[in-house]
Amino acid sequence: MESVIILVLELAGTLAFAASGAMTGLKKNMDIFGVCILGLTTAVGGGVIRDLILGNTPPATFQDPIYATVSVVTSLVLFLPQVRRLLMWDQGLFDLVLFLMDTAGLAIFTVVGIRTAYAHEPQATVFLLVFVGVITGVGGGVLRDIMAGDTPYIFVKHIYACASLVGALLCGLLWHYAGEMLSMLAGGGAVILIRGLSAHFRWNLPRAHD
Amino acid sequence: MESVIILVLELAGTLAFAASGAMTGLKKNMDIFGVCILGLTTAVGGGVIRDLILGNTPPATFQDPIYATVSVVTSLVLFLPQVRRLLMWDQGLFDLVLFLMDTAGLAIFTVVGIRTAYAHEPQATVFLLVFVGVITGVGGGVLRDIMAGDTPYIFVKHIYACASLVGALLCGLLWHYAGEMLSMLAGGGAVILIRGLSAHFRWNLPRAHD
Amino acid sequence: MESVIILVLELAGTLAFAASGAMTGLKKNMDIFGVCILGLTTAVGGGVIRDLILGNTPPATFQDPIYATVSVVTSLVLFLPQVRRLLMWDQGLFDLVLFLMDTAGLAIFTVVGIRTAYAHEPQATVFLLVFVGVITGVGGGVLRDIMAGDTPYIFVKHIYACASLVGALLCGLLWHYAGEMLSMLAGGGAVILIRGLSAHFRWNLPRAHD
Repeated sequence: MESVIILVLELAGTLAFAASGAMTGLKKNMDIFGVCILGLTTAVGGGVIRDLILGNTPPATFQDPIYATVSVVTSLVLFLPQVRRLLMWDQGLFDLVLFLMDTAGLAIFTVVGIRTAYAHEPQATVFLLVFVGVITGVGGGVLRDIMAGDTPYIFVKHIYACASLVGALLCGLLWHYAGEMLSMLAGGGAVILIRGLSAHFRWNLPRAHD
Repeated sequence: MESVIILVLELAGTLAFAASGAMTGLKKNMDIFGVCILGLTTAVGGGVIRDLILGNTPPATFQDPIYATVSVVTSLVLFLPQVRRLLMWDQGLFDLVLFLMDTAGLAIFTVVGIRTAYAHEPQATVFLLVFVGVITGVGGGVLRDIMAGDTPYIFVKHIYACASLVGALLCGLLWHYAGEMLSMLAGGGAVILIRGLSAHFRWNLPRAHD
Repeated sequence: MESVIILVLELAGTLAFAASGAMTGLKKNMDIFGVCILGLTTAVGGGVIRDLILGNTPPATFQDPIYATVSVVTSLVLFLPQVRRLLMWDQGLFDLVLFLMDTAGLAIFTVVGIRTAYAHEPQATVFLLVFVGVITGVGGGVLRDIMAGDTPYIFVKHIYACASLVGALLCGLLWHYAGEMLSMLAGGGAVILIRGLSAHFRWNLPRAHD
């Protein structure tokens, strides 16, 4: 049962990040293959980095085609003229969908990353769990931005990695007390809450030259 | 005998990708060391990523100096004023040589990647073989473009990763039926054919805003 | 005793590279979290790449929080208005501190990288030792520049990777004759000497279009 929930979560995160990568590719006017590659990289990048760090080779993405399939199908659907026209009809809608997809992916991948780290290293410290969770969460987006030639989102936009970090801390600290499911729910919820609030109230962290 | 052919192929691919990296460095007016590093990164990058994914550590490049030596010597030769003058004498010639080198490297590294994946994971699915083959083929070029500050070639230029993917699929599917050598020949040939035809006829994949 | 010296060196290198990453973030007007991430990436990036290449997973950085702690605290201190004002009061001072930090980090990480490679692969050839040393030395800075959207330092600035290479060669060649400590001292000293001299006398390597 639990493993089914995890798989559904992973696929939802994959879909969300694939969509955010593909939409970045559409914005940059990439061709259909470029859009698919950017969708795929964004969706599986965080997990591949996570598995390399944990010494879990070949990474899960390479062993089970379902993640790549979901990523590519998502990218192809977003490339359909009808879908694109719908999304591009309104810049506000496009940006909102991109934001929601990115937030959902960040929340899911952060807590799934912690779970994978824990499964692979049962003696892991909270430090390792949190570190691996954040890298799984933000890794795909950083690869997307580097490959698309943008400054990585985590450096410039609203509270992003910060949301992942707080969610990962919450999830990692609760792990031994509240059990897997509750910890993941609390951590993922915190990520979505913090990102949502910070975007709505335009919270920003202090900068050097304000 | 077979291992000699593989080594010759690997060295030819290394030479080709080192040349494409070094020529990118020359275009950017890098100094002699920068040209060598870019040649080296392009030539060995795909293989290092492949070995990390397969858990094959330290990667082959780090164990046998021949790949790094070929890369650096190739880069140094291209830096020679006489060679540079010859190449830069004609922009068309320069671009043609760069194209041929890049295509040869892509074809060779794609099929060699599949072979390495198969040797390391004999139970590998076709999916894993193809995925690893494409990453080995395009990985070095992606690193080259990211390090040189360009948008990765695979996102913007003629059918590139697409050629690698078709060649990898052909090679991976034939593997158990046609044997190693024939599969690699067919896969590599397909990569060269598709890239050559697409460049000649200026084929392009559909874009979002045409 | 020796392991204490190594730890002190590693922490000094971590501090130096964290400072160079954080100062790059300050220059780019990143927010406080971005400055910390860039400091952290620069400081631990080289070591993480090194450990992945050696198959040493999870990398040391993920197992012991001290490296991340030093990186983040260093970045936070540099973000303090008082410290920033002091550094930014004089562009020359800022650049000098950045240069010194970067050089110290390069020297320390190069020789520590060789030591880690040797500890992990006692049968390693000098080639592997040197290669891993240089990657440990320059890896963090390359990640910093790629993430900050700059052309990697190693391609454009004064003799940089070249200094790391000469120091690594010296250290790797001496290893079996002069012992660990002396080799690291000689190698690290060579890095600092070469970078210092090349900056002072504005040495540059030849370029293609001079």
